Amino acid sequence: MNGADRLCDVLLANGVNVCFANPGTSEMHFVAALDRKPQMRCVLGLSEGVVTGAADGYARMADKPAATLLHLGPGLANGLANLHNARRASTPMLNIVGDHATQHLAFDAPLTSDIDSLARPMSNWVGRIARSADIRSRTEEAYRAAMTTPGIATLVLHADAAWGNVETEPLEPLPVAERSMPQAALIGRAADALKAGDAALFLGGRAMRADALEVAGRIAEATGAQLFTERAARWQRGAGRVAPRHVPYRIEHALETLKNVRTAILVGGREPVGFFAYPGKPGRLLPEQATLIELAGCGDDLPGVLEALADAVGAGAMQAAVSSLSAPDLARPSGRLDPDAISVAIARALPEDAVICEESITSAGRLATLAPTMVPHDHLPLTGGSIGIGIPLATGAAIGAPGRKVVCLQADGSGMYTLQGLWTQARECLDVTTVVFSNRGYAILKGEMRNVGVDGIGANARRMLEIDDPALDWVSLARGMGVEGARAETAERFADIFEAAMSRTGPFLIEAVI
Amino acid sequence: MNGADRLCDVLLANGVNVCFANPGTSEMHFVAALDRKPQMRCVLGLSEGVVTGAADGYARMADKPAATLLHLGPGLANGLANLHNARRASTPMLNIVGDHATQHLAFDAPLTSDIDSLARPMSNWVGRIARSADIRSRTEEAYRAAMTTPGIATLVLHADAAWGNVETEPLEPLPVAERSMPQAALIGRAADALKAGDAALFLGGRAMRADALEVAGRIAEATGAQLFTERAARWQRGAGRVAPRHVPYRIEHALETLKNVRTAILVGGREPVGFFAYPGKPGRLLPEQATLIELAGCGDDLPGVLEALADAVGAGAMQAAVSSLSAPDLARPSGRLDPDAISVAIARALPEDAVICEESITSAGRLATLAPTMVPHDHLPLTGGSIGIGIPLATGAAIGAPGRKVVCLQADGSGMYTLQGLWTQARECLDVTTVVFSNRGYAILKGEMRNVGVDGIGANARRMLEIDDPALDWVSLARGMGVEGARAETAERFADIFEAAMSRTGPFLIEAVI
Repeated sequence: MNGADRLCDVLLANGVNVCFANPGTSEMHFVAALDRKPQMRCVLGLSEGVVTGAADGYARMADKPAATLLHLGPGLANGLANLHNARRASTPMLNIVGDHATQHLAFDAPLTSDIDSLARPMSNWVGRIARSADIRSRTEEAYRAAMTTPGIATLVLHADAAWGNVETEPLEPLPVAERSMPQAALIGRAADALKAGDAALFLGGRAMRADALEVAGRIAEATGAQLFTERAARWQRGAGRVAPRHVPYRIEHALETLKNVRTAILVGGREPVGFFAYPGKPGRLLPEQATLIELAGCGDDLPGVLEALADAVGAGAMQAAVSSLSAPDLARPSGRLDPDAISVAIARALPEDAVICEESITSAGRLATLAPTMVPHDHLPLTGGSIGIGIPLATGAAIGAPGRKVVCLQADGSGMYTLQGLWTQARECLDVTTVVFSNRGYAILKGEMRNVGVDGIGANARRMLEIDDPALDWVSLARGMGVEGARAETAERFADIFEAAMSRTGPFLIEAVI
Repeated sequence: MNGADRLCDVLLANGVNVCFANPGTSEMHFVAALDRKPQMRCVLGLSEGVVTGAADGYARMADKPAATLLHLGPGLANGLANLHNARRASTPMLNIVGDHATQHLAFDAPLTSDIDSLARPMSNWVGRIARSADIRSRTEEAYRAAMTTPGIATLVLHADAAWGNVETEPLEPLPVAERSMPQAALIGRAADALKAGDAALFLGGRAMRADALEVAGRIAEATGAQLFTERAARWQRGAGRVAPRHVPYRIEHALETLKNVRTAILVGGREPVGFFAYPGKPGRLLPEQATLIELAGCGDDLPGVLEALADAVGAGAMQAAVSSLSAPDLARPSGRLDPDAISVAIARALPEDAVICEESITSAGRLATLAPTMVPHDHLPLTGGSIGIGIPLATGAAIGAPGRKVVCLQADGSGMYTLQGLWTQARECLDVTTVVFSNRGYAILKGEMRNVGVDGIGANARRMLEIDDPALDWVSLARGMGVEGARAETAERFADIFEAAMSRTGPFLIEAVI
């Protein structure tokens, strides 16, 4: 057997059985090996931003890593922006990047580049396989790295290691490492701070699943603590669930929201900081005198930590405050189509257990308010701020959560980065409804121009912030990739189309002209 | 004045007056500065692969660098694949990458990443501006680096350096460095080798312009030397011009083509090596006993070197062999549409002085054969092997060569990487005709599968090499971005549409179903 076959076998032995790919010549032995493994699901992306973004969405829903297959430095480079988001989401992922045969590197052939330098900023682990004999050990090392939070593992596979022969001793799945708990003294300190009042829990990772949120809700009930989240990778929301608050993007609102926090306790969440710096404004969002307790990170046993904390503050018998279902009873929107009308139409008609992949940027603020009153659903947001994740994320989420409706809320400017993902949705017959908020501009940047003190926008700035000339025709773009679509210009029409999309399966796109 | 204004002024003082951009929040002061400089042409790309690929096409035609404006690490990352191609083309380019304000880096805000590590593999120079006071000196340094072959200069601009105040002493354009000549002894050695026979000149850079090729043709006439080129960035081809040969991509053909070379003399060209390594085949393509003389690189005075060489071998009075015009008289293709029929239709109807941007990969072999018999034109090929350059390259070439028809020969698989460039063509009303070779697969990889010894292609490999399910509808994709298009399924229809496209101006796309 050759090295490429062996690598596939190590992946399969550890349950990695989905490979998002866009291969090239240096990966042909790997492609041939995949061809011999029908148990591996191979999913082609027509650009690598689709490949890595889909692997992120898959892992967020399947709770295990996918493999990606990328072609040399440039193929990896195309996937880096969504790797960046995945890294910020603490997503497990195992990237296999082909490289030239070792003896070919010296020739500086056209596609040669420093892959490690490219990989490092967006990976938590980078390794190389230069000899077939190292295939098993290095791949297992990469898998372990992918399973260690945060877990972007990038494994560079030389072509000659892929085509060389290897021994075939039997493979065993690697043991799953236990997630760790903080020391009792630290839990005690956090409990004391909670009891002292004006504390806030910053939740992330697995603390954002419904069962863990319920425990956090009891702690809040017992101590008056506020619950916040920031850029959680997967947020279980909806009626009957505890609803932490989101730290606002706008710095003035964020500072106002957090002004009374005396102790910030991190349970999978991060200390809130400004997304960007602004002249004369602070970068840290917590009050200067606030105490920060870094209780547990995404790699720890977050449900266990919350249970321990609940015990320590005597929240065992409390009842967490949860919201009740009301969004389905909202009045059907009518008249002019705007982001609020879209949010209401979605909130009314979303099917239970749906997965919302959100890259609406400026457009779905109302939906965030309605979320606690909607049917229970999962919400996958943009975690790293790198645009172009929505369509790929939805593509991967649909593969990671078969049988569940995926709704992708997609701003138009960022949607154009990786629109190629629609083709993969068509090819794989994925149950994704994409809603494009077609405001024909980088609306967030127009706001940011004002934030930096520019009020009048002239010709040159307009040419970099508006995408209305020509207007994008998303229905044609979708059709070009085999995805049916429809355009809505009134609230009634949007509600009609969205409801119809919810009652059928398969990929569909709605261009919402706002 | 603030730092961003100053940076723009340094660019403009040195003739850099086109900026391809996709900005974000950290670049808002720069956008505001551009807004105050109507003499700067700002061109928006809807993804950064378009931005850097267009800057490459622009510089290849305008013979001067464009600026690019990219948003933080992820924005740069999206542009790296085409930066890789530009670096391999020795293209001058000045990338401005926004970074957080210096004091904000410590907070590890979501979009923070190691920009230098990302930039280095695809840049020849990387620098940072952390203080407004350094704006002029650092920008001038970057400009000098961009003007030094090879010249990808990447300048990271911290937001606080952009918004801080600077002094405004008057600016002068920097002096242009003289291009150097090799030592006389080396020219003598090359001349001796040429006179000894079985020598080959490997031409690249400016040696591929018509006037320099004429001198190379005289040298060939006087000495019997063969003329080769490999991955020249801009190749002036057509009737009345000297036509060097291309080193074939397939390694067996390349070895056969070069087997009689005793001395290889590099004049802007590179030593030919295999694009990829294959088991049991060599990486160097020259015969083992061949001598290599590295006479001059792309940064040297290549026309001067060729003149000196011509003098040394007594080629002054020779007449270079040039081809004559015959392609326009070819029979109009009819019947089944295949790559050859497309090549003939293009060869017949191409207008004089057109610019061909080629990323046809496997499809336009016949056109290369016909090129010497076509009207004089410029040919911009894929230089670094990183796919997704065609549409952006054509976009930039049209801006760099106004008044000339640009024809983009685009394979479908690679075209999907950066199809967003069509929108920029529509917005800027560029005179680009895109011919998509719609073979609905990564045809080159199917060949490469055979090269690695796989003959039968199974389900998993098929799913990574074919893009026929669903078939892409390029006419809809183009329409979605405001570009008119038509589909051709017969040779007659293709010729009709292509001829019509040549007789009108503005962007147009032809989907050639082959």
